[in-house]
Amino acid sequence: MNISGCEISVNSQVSIVKMAGFRVQALYDFAGEPGTAELSITAGEVLTVTRQNVGEGWWEGVNQAGQTGLFPAAYVQEVKGSQPPAMPPPPLPEAFTDPVQEVNTEDTWGSQGDHQQQPLSSQQSYEGGDYWDDEWDDDSEGGGTQTSQTNNSAYASGQVIPKSGSVGDVSTIGKSDGKGTVGRKNFNRFTTFVKSGGESYILGTVKVAVREEDKVHIYESEKGVVWNPITEPYVCMVASPKKESKLKGLKSFIAYQLTPSFNNIQVSRRYKHFDWLHERLEEKFSLVPIPPLPDKQISGRYEEQFIEHRRAQLQAFVNSVCRHPVLSRCEVWQHFLTCTDEKRWKAGKRKAEKDELVGANFFITLQAPERPQNITDLEQETEKCSKFIHEMDGAIKILMATAVDQTKKHQGPYKREYQRIGHAFSALGLAFREDDSPESARQNLMEAVRVTGNTYHEIGKLFEEQPKLDWEPLADVLHLYKGIISSFPDILTVHKGSLQKRRECEKLAADHKMESSQLSDVVRRTDVISYALLAEINHFHSERAIDFRLAMQNYLKEQISFYQKIVAKLQDALGKYD
Amino acid sequence: MNISGCEISVNSQVSIVKMAGFRVQALYDFAGEPGTAELSITAGEVLTVTRQNVGEGWWEGVNQAGQTGLFPAAYVQEVKGSQPPAMPPPPLPEAFTDPVQEVNTEDTWGSQGDHQQQPLSSQQSYEGGDYWDDEWDDDSEGGGTQTSQTNNSAYASGQVIPKSGSVGDVSTIGKSDGKGTVGRKNFNRFTTFVKSGGESYILGTVKVAVREEDKVHIYESEKGVVWNPITEPYVCMVASPKKESKLKGLKSFIAYQLTPSFNNIQVSRRYKHFDWLHERLEEKFSLVPIPPLPDKQISGRYEEQFIEHRRAQLQAFVNSVCRHPVLSRCEVWQHFLTCTDEKRWKAGKRKAEKDELVGANFFITLQAPERPQNITDLEQETEKCSKFIHEMDGAIKILMATAVDQTKKHQGPYKREYQRIGHAFSALGLAFREDDSPESARQNLMEAVRVTGNTYHEIGKLFEEQPKLDWEPLADVLHLYKGIISSFPDILTVHKGSLQKRRECEKLAADHKMESSQLSDVVRRTDVISYALLAEINHFHSERAIDFRLAMQNYLKEQISFYQKIVAKLQDALGKYD
Repeated sequence: MNISGCEISVNSQVSIVKMAGFRVQALYDFAGEPGTAELSITAGEVLTVTRQNVGEGWWEGVNQAGQTGLFPAAYVQEVKGSQPPAMPPPPLPEAFTDPVQEVNTEDTWGSQGDHQQQPLSSQQSYEGGDYWDDEWDDDSEGGGTQTSQTNNSAYASGQVIPKSGSVGDVSTIGKSDGKGTVGRKNFNRFTTFVKSGGESYILGTVKVAVREEDKVHIYESEKGVVWNPITEPYVCMVASPKKESKLKGLKSFIAYQLTPSFNNIQVSRRYKHFDWLHERLEEKFSLVPIPPLPDKQISGRYEEQFIEHRRAQLQAFVNSVCRHPVLSRCEVWQHFLTCTDEKRWKAGKRKAEKDELVGANFFITLQAPERPQNITDLEQETEKCSKFIHEMDGAIKILMATAVDQTKKHQGPYKREYQRIGHAFSALGLAFREDDSPESARQNLMEAVRVTGNTYHEIGKLFEEQPKLDWEPLADVLHLYKGIISSFPDILTVHKGSLQKRRECEKLAADHKMESSQLSDVVRRTDVISYALLAEINHFHSERAIDFRLAMQNYLKEQISFYQKIVAKLQDALGKYD
Repeated sequence: MNISGCEISVNSQVSIVKMAGFRVQALYDFAGEPGTAELSITAGEVLTVTRQNVGEGWWEGVNQAGQTGLFPAAYVQEVKGSQPPAMPPPPLPEAFTDPVQEVNTEDTWGSQGDHQQQPLSSQQSYEGGDYWDDEWDDDSEGGGTQTSQTNNSAYASGQVIPKSGSVGDVSTIGKSDGKGTVGRKNFNRFTTFVKSGGESYILGTVKVAVREEDKVHIYESEKGVVWNPITEPYVCMVASPKKESKLKGLKSFIAYQLTPSFNNIQVSRRYKHFDWLHERLEEKFSLVPIPPLPDKQISGRYEEQFIEHRRAQLQAFVNSVCRHPVLSRCEVWQHFLTCTDEKRWKAGKRKAEKDELVGANFFITLQAPERPQNITDLEQETEKCSKFIHEMDGAIKILMATAVDQTKKHQGPYKREYQRIGHAFSALGLAFREDDSPESARQNLMEAVRVTGNTYHEIGKLFEEQPKLDWEPLADVLHLYKGIISSFPDILTVHKGSLQKRRECEKLAADHKMESSQLSDVVRRTDVISYALLAEINHFHSERAIDFRLAMQNYLKEQISFYQKIVAKLQDALGKYD
């Protein structure tokens, strides 16, 4: 719902400041996990939202029977006209209306709170939202909670049995439509961008030195506008999530082992390191949609299967960064990928946090072709992109809901139905047992029918196990692209803002209030932003084609193998009748 | 429920005379066909039965919401202690309590009504129950109804579109647990048997001449006690159900073409001829369970698919008779199978209806081994048979309910789920259409995703079409055996009655009230009945083993072929991604 065109990122800020108490209608059925705070909802039923800052992708609400609980925000849509008056939207970014604002690069990270437009609740959601990491990491800012320790000891003593991890994993993915996330992220990125001076860049007032190695080149090729292609491609394995502990076992966390192919040296990273990296990348690259991290979780729901699935999602994030011509080369990423020394880690961390070439300042590093852009073509291109993103968002939503739904159905009704068939045949086999005639043919029939019963029981189990082979990996790709496309509206807005600024300057020049040499500098700089956008759109489309081709191939291969397994089992059963 | 041991046939008479108004609890869900008189019921809900004489296998009832409608009697069980006082059961067969009753063979068919114990409603159900034949046959006793004419003209003008015939067919099979049918049939057979003088046979008071060709031989072989085996096996095709008409098209009916393999001469028979034949066989062979005809139907529900399925069920009946050593040789069956001439048909019909060797008189024709039977062995054997029948009845009930349920699920939810998956992929394919880049790889991806969407849509259709290939033929075999085993309790009761009579005579002889030569004749005659029973049980088991082996093989082969079709479709879709 955030993604419906260029104007959306501003509107999306409205949605996150909406007060609780508005009414929503369930789009899909959601079966809450028994014994948790989850609330089962039924498609069509109307709920009143009581809290939106529960955790990523979850809302709290009360149904018409008065039951309160959590449900996935993605599963509901707002009932129009039902909400109490929303808070007024925050003012439009000042940078685009006040051309004389000076850039204070030192202030970029230092005083974010000063300009904070978000209500406290939304902020709380952000700061308190990392339940998952808290669960394993008492070393976080806020210190450990009793819950996390309980979980840890339960895990250590083997008392926590992973339960239906696979449903959970896929369904969890499905639950985050990124409404909360996108809203918050967009807001952060956007204010960062404004504060870091997109305006100033266009007007040429940014004074930051750019080292040669920081320059980012854009070319025109037969494939269109492209980022400087990766010349030495590499991959990085994310492996062996391990429970580690410190302070004599009092505090424990999960560490993932990363091994880049270019040096084969393993580094150990925790989720909070990924999270920190993700923030850096988002701040730095205003025009690059940063692939999403796995969703944060309400704690204590899944264990081993969840961690393995989390690893797969981190691998998807790492793959996506490794394949991005700009991200894969950037310093903070290289630091994250290679630093093995605690001291150097902290130094690199500080350095990255003080990076001046973030937000709009990143534009200074761009080295684009000289050919001027045609503004009409650009508008067509961005309009097309916007439309694509909108369509893809809808399609991903449907497919994600299908993945969640099918996963649940495989593990519930499908399994049950096949086992019911098995039960019916078993009953027949049992009845035939009553014929104790020694005639071997009849005995063999009884055994064959019994085996048929077992076969359908096993097919039921195959159904249960199947989603983690087909739907879950597909859902991971959907999750990746859901995150990526959720960044596009902001990116398009930044670009649109630059074109708007250019038009203002053209008007000023026409009114002889701006010199033509100054105008042509402005035009050049907006062209640089346009080149960057075009390069990114191009990269997005070619990655998308590759990723979805692989994802669909994997999905279909697993489906084929699944039905072949069923065929093989049935053939075995049939053989018993010979 | 009728089948739980030897005493049951008497109890089953109680169930058919029970007044309406008793309460039943639904054992299974049943989804009524919208727009018909059917009432959807949910497992566990309690209904009050308002009418039992609706049609074969259907009852009318009212649910707790006050809705009235029809539901399958097999889907409910009586709530104990809920019914108003039932009518008293009919008196026990007099023949076993009044040893001096004389046999009046002339009266066997002539005055059935005189001894009628059934309440009128049950009788109405019987006479008015052949809805299906009425539908096509205005030539019946009551003449055509407006409904049947409407149906005919609608059919002729092509207005009647066959709707979901396959569900209907299987579900219809499932709906008749034969409670009504069995009840009625048992009652008829039983009274016929009593009136025809089982008692008299045992006491040796029957005076009917037996021609050599009417003698039925029983042997002991290495396979146990057997009917004189079939020496010239034959088959008979039931083919080409055709709508025929007479009286210048005013009256129309379906005719089936039967071609026996021994002469290859085709005869044309209508359902009412089958029905007449079935009545003759039931009356004649007290100890042979006659395979059931297809269930009669509430009219106007199905058309072409229904007729084809009806043909398949008639074929199953014909096969079963052809393979029975006694039935396949009997005169009325041969007449039915070979008579092509209208005049000879009527003569043969009259002759069969006047057959003296029916019911207990049929025993006179039996030529059994001389070796005396051991009464303890016999009791063990019949107890085992009774237990087997009971177990098999339960298993068939479960499997039939599964067949009905799976058929509905294939045509409803399964189809829908797969088509939903198809829809989700189609949506993704559509979204990718928005990327109109000329790069062929991306275009090819869009097309491949679109094809994947279509593929799942087609798999949905495969699901819909599948049950008529696997569940429906299996259900036909279940229907056949459901009918056959429903006859066993009566047969076992007849046998038990004869053993009881033998004991009475042994007591009379011990008290010197019967001469020992007379007793040894009684013992011999009860042995003959026992031999016949053992031969029939033996035949039943070997046929059952053959039929279920074939049925299970066919079911599994069709299931394998089904999943292979899915695999092939998915492989085609996968190929599009190359």
